[in-house]
Amino acid sequence: MHRQATSGQIQDCIKNCQHCHQICVETVQHCLTKGGPHAEANHIKTLLDCAEICETSANFMVRGSNIHSQTCSVCAEACERCATDCERFGDDAQMKACAESCRRCVESCRQMATPQAA
Amino acid sequence: MHRQATSGQIQDCIKNCQHCHQICVETVQHCLTKGGPHAEANHIKTLLDCAEICETSANFMVRGSNIHSQTCSVCAEACERCATDCERFGDDAQMKACAESCRRCVESCRQMATPQAA
Amino acid sequence: MHRQATSGQIQDCIKNCQHCHQICVETVQHCLTKGGPHAEANHIKTLLDCAEICETSANFMVRGSNIHSQTCSVCAEACERCATDCERFGDDAQMKACAESCRRCVESCRQMATPQAA
Amino acid sequence: MHRQATSGQIQDCIKNCQHCHQICVETVQHCLTKGGPHAEANHIKTLLDCAEICETSANFMVRGSNIHSQTCSVCAEACERCATDCERFGDDAQMKACAESCRRCVESCRQMATPQAA
Repeated sequence: MHRQATSGQIQDCIKNCQHCHQICVETVQHCLTKGGPHAEANHIKTLLDCAEICETSANFMVRGSNIHSQTCSVCAEACERCATDCERFGDDAQMKACAESCRRCVESCRQMATPQAA
Repeated sequence: MHRQATSGQIQDCIKNCQHCHQICVETVQHCLTKGGPHAEANHIKTLLDCAEICETSANFMVRGSNIHSQTCSVCAEACERCATDCERFGDDAQMKACAESCRRCVESCRQMATPQAA
Repeated sequence: MHRQATSGQIQDCIKNCQHCHQICVETVQHCLTKGGPHAEANHIKTLLDCAEICETSANFMVRGSNIHSQTCSVCAEACERCATDCERFGDDAQMKACAESCRRCVESCRQMATPQAA
Repeated sequence: MHRQATSGQIQDCIKNCQHCHQICVETVQHCLTKGGPHAEANHIKTLLDCAEICETSANFMVRGSNIHSQTCSVCAEACERCATDCERFGDDAQMKACAESCRRCVESCRQMATPQAA
């Protein structure tokens, strides 16, 4: 049995995507300034991917798109990868905050991505 | 004499741009559903312009861009036009909320757009 | 057996997404100017969804993202819906051009979306 | 005396912005992969700024926005800074191509940004 996401869950998911977008954009600059492994090409690419799909995913929900569950599904995947990537840098407050925001976004995007009755 | 925007002013401006972006995206769907003058091509274009430049302007500030005062300046102009356009529909709660969000964004973007010491 | 997309297929898909993005943005204004069924809220939402995910999908491919097959998959779905929606307006050159661009984008995004060896 | 941009000039400017957007997104990954001075935080920020405002500027022109001359003006500034920044890396084909694309975009955005009769 599939359950529809409630309006409150959608509002939370929008907020989580917007927050995750913002912190990923900040974290790109943080990592480039630190340099070394933080500035590695694949890590920055993962952050840029996550930032962009979070923005898109939030916009689809705000617009009430019929396919927002699909954008949320890709967003959950991008956030999962970004969280895992950021968690490698254990002792850095910015990376921790970014990973936590990504994890929250994964959780609420997965609720949206659950197949729903038409 | 020019004054630098404080960090608090920048954070407020980011929030105002993000809020204005979101409400403009919502208002596009609201207006299209109402139809008639609400769905007029120039009005929707004004809302889409405002939504997009608010998103861009917020991202420039989040990234700490050197030219964020210039994106804020264009953003203030787009929000000003959007507020004026929405205020024509006086008795509609969504339009009022959109116009108020645009006005707040105009005000804080103008603070950012003031030429600042390099 | 899964085959990797070739570099030429990726370049074509980027071009198709970019073209589809642009024509959808144009078509929104075209439809709002025509009014009537062209300006119906769900039709415009479908065009805006298609425009945005095409832009995002192109950027993921340009960046060489590891999850571009997933953004392409959502993009194919959005373009499919947009093509079908535009084809209802059979005698209108802009709608025909938009539907054709969407169909080309569906086809090349589906090639990208095929699961590929890691 | 102010002259209106012709339709051909606008189409060229859209193409130049789209091309500049794409090459800047590619160049970010190129620079991060090279590392060293190429991956310096301010250089990547300049590329990300340029990529984003080129995308926005193109969309404003495609939509026929009334304030596209203002987004073009900011875009010209961002491209000018990006071109200058890329030209420091004289012997690198990707950086040269990026700088050339930025220079073309500056030139056509400046034509759009010229104040025009209302």
